[in-house]
Amino acid sequence: MEKEKLFCGFHAARNALRSCPSNGELLHDGRRDDARLGALLDLAARAGVPVRLVSREELNRVAVGVRHQGVIVRLIRVDSERPAGLPEYIDGLAETPLILVLDAIQDPHNLGACLRSAAAAGVHGVVLSQNKGCSLTPSAIRVAAGAVSHLRIFEESNWTRLLKMLKQKGLWLIGADAFGDQSVFDVDLTEPTAIIVGSEDSGLRQVTRGQCDRIARIPLPGRIDSLNVSVAAGVMLFEAVRQRTVSQSLQTGS
Amino acid sequence: MEKEKLFCGFHAARNALRSCPSNGELLHDGRRDDARLGALLDLAARAGVPVRLVSREELNRVAVGVRHQGVIVRLIRVDSERPAGLPEYIDGLAETPLILVLDAIQDPHNLGACLRSAAAAGVHGVVLSQNKGCSLTPSAIRVAAGAVSHLRIFEESNWTRLLKMLKQKGLWLIGADAFGDQSVFDVDLTEPTAIIVGSEDSGLRQVTRGQCDRIARIPLPGRIDSLNVSVAAGVMLFEAVRQRTVSQSLQTGS
Repeated sequence: MEKEKLFCGFHAARNALRSCPSNGELLHDGRRDDARLGALLDLAARAGVPVRLVSREELNRVAVGVRHQGVIVRLIRVDSERPAGLPEYIDGLAETPLILVLDAIQDPHNLGACLRSAAAAGVHGVVLSQNKGCSLTPSAIRVAAGAVSHLRIFEESNWTRLLKMLKQKGLWLIGADAFGDQSVFDVDLTEPTAIIVGSEDSGLRQVTRGQCDRIARIPLPGRIDSLNVSVAAGVMLFEAVRQRTVSQSLQTGS
Repeated sequence: MEKEKLFCGFHAARNALRSCPSNGELLHDGRRDDARLGALLDLAARAGVPVRLVSREELNRVAVGVRHQGVIVRLIRVDSERPAGLPEYIDGLAETPLILVLDAIQDPHNLGACLRSAAAAGVHGVVLSQNKGCSLTPSAIRVAAGAVSHLRIFEESNWTRLLKMLKQKGLWLIGADAFGDQSVFDVDLTEPTAIIVGSEDSGLRQVTRGQCDRIARIPLPGRIDSLNVSVAAGVMLFEAVRQRTVSQSLQTGS
């Protein structure tokens, strides 16, 4: 079984090539002959990724509606390369785990923005539901601006089993909710942590909420009582980054 | 001269009506007869906002391409109600000012998301450039999910004069940049502060950068070196919220 990932447009394609993909190709339509394309072809050559000249129509067909600026990187993952499952992956982490769990995000734009923030925050992995919410569509991947090639993304089908497993592995499950009982600024995120955000309309699902160790809110002193889900995820992730930086500098005495 | 603002869709319309508008109307197309519309009509009645039944085509014409779910609130500001300018407004603030300055954001979706975060964080005002970047389009207002009716938004034409005025009023100008010389977590945001974020592609303009007191970065420990602009704005605003909450609880001894 093969599963392919598409990186449409210069930004996404560049980041995909930088991740040194073992199995993929760069498609372009030869309509431009400028420094930007030149740099991309260089990157592909260095990464050992074959380049294929195709028609604009072929690019449009591959991109299925996503804006591609004439360039697409297509990475193909073959089954023999299938990475370890999430439990083994967590066992193998050398650092204190920070995982982002996306509980049924609906909108590809929001999903992509969450992935971009997660990659920038240096999370160790992102978990999506295989059955609920938006999956890793080409437009989510495009909005993620190359983040997907730097992220370990796990799509899980049995949600309760997933959450129980995370707890068994020693992670604290911190659900985000505008009406949570504790400010996220008062929650210790330096411990092994899974930050869980819910869908745009209805937040955390009941099945998720029931498994959380804490339901944390971002304090909203203003007159709007909710944030965009990708902003909420970003604020929580970077609060974890802040706490972990402070904690590290205390430990090293710097 | 009249200037109108549109609030398309249930979420935006509800928030607009809650702001007790003095001058507006609720348009709907009568296609639905459910609790959601009923609640909206109730709100309009309590706010003294007239309701007008119009055709779907009329709604489409008013919304100019923005999704409206059959309901639009239109607020009309007449010139006699024109609010005080930004300098007088800052002078009149009882709290330590927190202002968000958007330096030429290009995309209405990002602009709307920034406004929503700003309103939730309780900023005292948002400043946009009158000449550069995206203005307050209906789709920005829709993404802002009602935030616009809770925000003081100033559109300024002379950018250098604006920034100098903010400094004269005692505000620290903190520009956001991925390669800033100081971590935002180490910058004191409890003082009177203007947080400034730049455009998606090129960040802060040179004219802006030259006036900033600090260029602050959000530490990005991961392998992606930039954030979506609305996420970056959110992280910086809520770091200010965090610092101000901590500082307040220290002052009151709670």
